[in-house]
Order: sequence, then structure tokens, then C-alpha cells
Amino acid sequence: MDYTGQNCWQVIRFDGKDPSSLDDEVAAEFPLTVMLNGEEFATMVCSPTDLEELVIGFLASEGIIRFYDEISSMSVDEKRGFAYIEITKDIGSLQYDHSKRFIGSCCGKSRQFYFKSDVKTAKTIYSRLSISVDQCYALMRKMQAASEQFIRTGGVHNAALASPDEMLAIRNDIGRHNALDKIYGHILQERIPVKNKLIVFSGRMSSEVLLKISKIGAGTLLSKSAPTDLALQLADDLGITVIGFARKGRLNVYTHPHRIEEVNRQHS
Amino acid sequence: MDYTGQNCWQVIRFDGKDPSSLDDEVAAEFPLTVMLNGEEFATMVCSPTDLEELVIGFLASEGIIRFYDEISSMSVDEKRGFAYIEITKDIGSLQYDHSKRFIGSCCGKSRQFYFKSDVKTAKTIYSRLSISVDQCYALMRKMQAASEQFIRTGGVHNAALASPDEMLAIRNDIGRHNALDKIYGHILQERIPVKNKLIVFSGRMSSEVLLKISKIGAGTLLSKSAPTDLALQLADDLGITVIGFARKGRLNVYTHPHRIEEVNRQHS
Repeated sequence: MDYTGQNCWQVIRFDGKDPSSLDDEVAAEFPLTVMLNGEEFATMVCSPTDLEELVIGFLASEGIIRFYDEISSMSVDEKRGFAYIEITKDIGSLQYDHSKRFIGSCCGKSRQFYFKSDVKTAKTIYSRLSISVDQCYALMRKMQAASEQFIRTGGVHNAALASPDEMLAIRNDIGRHNALDKIYGHILQERIPVKNKLIVFSGRMSSEVLLKISKIGAGTLLSKSAPTDLALQLADDLGITVIGFARKGRLNVYTHPHRIEEVNRQHS
Repeated sequence: MDYTGQNCWQVIRFDGKDPSSLDDEVAAEFPLTVMLNGEEFATMVCSPTDLEELVIGFLASEGIIRFYDEISSMSVDEKRGFAYIEITKDIGSLQYDHSKRFIGSCCGKSRQFYFKSDVKTAKTIYSRLSISVDQCYALMRKMQAASEQFIRTGGVHNAALASPDEMLAIRNDIGRHNALDKIYGHILQERIPVKNKLIVFSGRMSSEVLLKISKIGAGTLLSKSAPTDLALQLADDLGITVIGFARKGRLNVYTHPHRIEEVNRQHS
């Protein structure tokens, strides 16, 4: 296995004419086991790129850490597929309870959370970001162009950090959540302020994705795919602007449209 | 929340002209907590349809049950989002160990499994199914047509059970794995023999998807999306024919092409 995230496979292709035999690129899938303070914590399958960022973002998404400083040491053994992380906290004291459903009623609202770890980290976003529809289209095009080599395999999601004017970082993975975790890990590791930035995404926006955006602290999520109703309820509640179906010169604004310049202009 | 799997949301749409405000359908996302023999087992988010089949397929995918008969009672409380299942086995005796990585070497081959539950259920498939490329295209078209109402929301995956000539059952879900679990649950509940049938799928084919196909016992997987390298290694090992990128008059055959009529004809 190489670590470009891609491999070759001999396929038989049918496209109307006679079958042809050719080498086709397929996305690499890599199992990575996370060892936390000497204990096996989780195994994920991912694209074998940016593994440190992935692990940092994953631990933050799970509510295990909040800042990069909480990691006292980290090493990734790419050959064997293990990541060894030591954190300053005692894991026992975290009362990590990933599998239990937890529905809380916050601030008298109807907000529903499924995991206790989410309650600790989800927060309402106050972001003064303002973005135009044309800037949204431009960012989607930039993400598309930068991930061209990954698009060839047809099996990879993209997540990016951007300002309205500029693409700042793009990460790829076969898993939607992993792509976001890599961007989250990058933000934590580089200590990038995100309040007035946005996340650009290729994947479907479920409640889990919205919770991740809330934890990252970004006020705007722009995706070429569709949202679910629960994701929109969360976005509404948490103050996140959700823009979906951004493709081919159209897009939908689902929540908090005041961050879209054209909407602001109409109302002023 | 209604139980059609769809909801309405007011959106602002931009499509080159002035923004327009309209009601848009979005896919419903529903949290379902599975209570197994009185203990909380897992919470999944899913489309709120075919919930009994989903739970049966999920428990089978996790290696908890192998046959429908092992379930002594089941009830789904759709209002509260809980499924109560009693199985005849003692859960303690299952030594259920979902989170631990387990890499076994089966039959001297390089096969890798990540969860102990997979080792119990993954098996090499001997299927005499023979299918033509045109039959593949026809099945993809049929699945597409039948799920038209779900396609409107842009956020739903399809999985179907088919014979080469005929579409037998189609299930939908916001989660790729859930759609497959619903079909698996349907097969178990109706005791449908699958050895010479195929699974038609809309989603990306990862190693987890291939393990599920192996557990279901189908010899052929046809999808409009891409496979990963690890999925293809598993398919190669387990005797499963993988057909991918089946769209717009083309498709790729990745593994075990002897089940494709046109390939057989060339070689005879």
C-alpha cells in the first residue's frame, strides 16, 4: 500500500463497445487503531493521509480533548496502522460514554443531543462572517479543482477551511467524517481562529456533521450535498448558516441567511 | 416528524436570478435506540421507515444474531424512538467486543478483519449467478425510478435485492449502512435465499459494505459508486463479484468477472 491515498486495480470496462481491460485508480482504505494513554480506544478506516490531524480532530470530535496542548505526545506508525497518543487528562475521569443516548433540554429549547460528549462541546456560534453567493460558487470550484486527483477515484470526500475570499486548507478522505476531522485537527494544531471563517464540504449534512461544525466553532457550512431535517434544526438552534446543493450555478440557504450578502442587501 | 422519511424546510434559493423563497423537501433523520434484552445496545440515526427490518439487519451485521428465529420478541416505539428486542441467546455469552481490532489470518491468506464479530460471519460465497451487462443497466434504472421520490431530497441511499431479471425489494435510508441493513433484515425476516441473487446499491463500496454483503450471502454487488482497494481485496478473497460506476451506459467489473455473461462468452 502506498500513502498517496490511491491504488491501481485491473478492471474490465463496458461502455457500449466491447469490454476493455485496463488499470483503474481506486481509493485506498487504511485501518488506523488509536491507542490512548496505552489503551486501545478505537479503530477507524480512512484514507492514509494527514493521519496526525485525523487523530487530533477525532479526539476533539469525541470530546476527549479541546485543545492541542492537552496532547502530551503523539506518534503514528504508518506501517502497522497504529497511532499512539498520550493526553494529560486521566481517561477514567472523562467518564467517556460514547454509546449511551443522552437527550438533554438546553436553555429551555428543544435541542436534542445523542451523546454526552456532545453536550460538553456543542455551543451557539456568534460569527460576523458575511459572504456573497458568488464567493460561495468560487470556493466550491476551488475545492473541486484542488481535489481533482482524488475525484478520479470517485470515492473521496473533501472538507476545507476557507475565508470568503480564500481557500485556506483542503483535506480528503474516503469517510465524510474523517475529512472533517482532518480539517478540525489542522485547525487545532495550527491554532487557527475560525469564528469568521467557513467550512466547505462535499458530503451530506447530517446532525453529526452539524455537531462537528459546532465543535469546530465555524459559523457557516457550505456543501454541494443535501442536509437532513435534524441537521437543520441543530443549525437553527446553534446559530450556524447552512448552504446546500451548491453546484452548477445554484445553491440553497437553509438557516441563518443574514450571513449572505445578497440577503442582507435586500433587507437593508 | 412524519414517517414518510421527508420533511419540508423553508429555503432561500439562488440560481442566477434573484433569490426566491420556497418550501423544499429535506430528508428526515431519526434517532433510534436499540434496547437488547433490557440493556441499551446502540443508538443509530436513520430514515424513519422499515425500522423492524433495520434492527434485524443491524443485529445480524453486528454478529449478534444469524437467523430471524433467534429473536423471541421485538417491538418498535416510533414515537419515542426506541426498539425493544429480546433474543434467545445470553448477551454475556456472545463476548461482544465491537470496538477491539482483530486481525486474523484465515486459510493462510492475507485476509484482515477488524472486528471479532466479522470473523464469525464472513464467508466465501459460492454463487452460480450469471448476469449480462444490459441486465445490470436495467436494474440500476429500476432502482433509480423506484426511489424517485427519495431522490428529490438528495440525501438518501438505496439498497435493493434483485435477481438478474427482476427487482425484488428496495429500501432507502440517509445512511448507506442502514439501507443495506434494511435489505438484510428483509431477507432474514422473509427467509429469502440469496445465493444466486445480487445486491444493487447506490453508495460507495468500502470494506464494511463488502463484509455486509458477505454476511448477507450474496455473490454479486452492483453499485453506481466507486469501491476502495480494501473492499476489492475482500471481494477477491470472499468470492464476490464487484461491479461499480454503473451509470450512463458504462460500468466497471472489478472482481470475479466470470459471473458476467459477456466475459464468459469471450472466454468460451
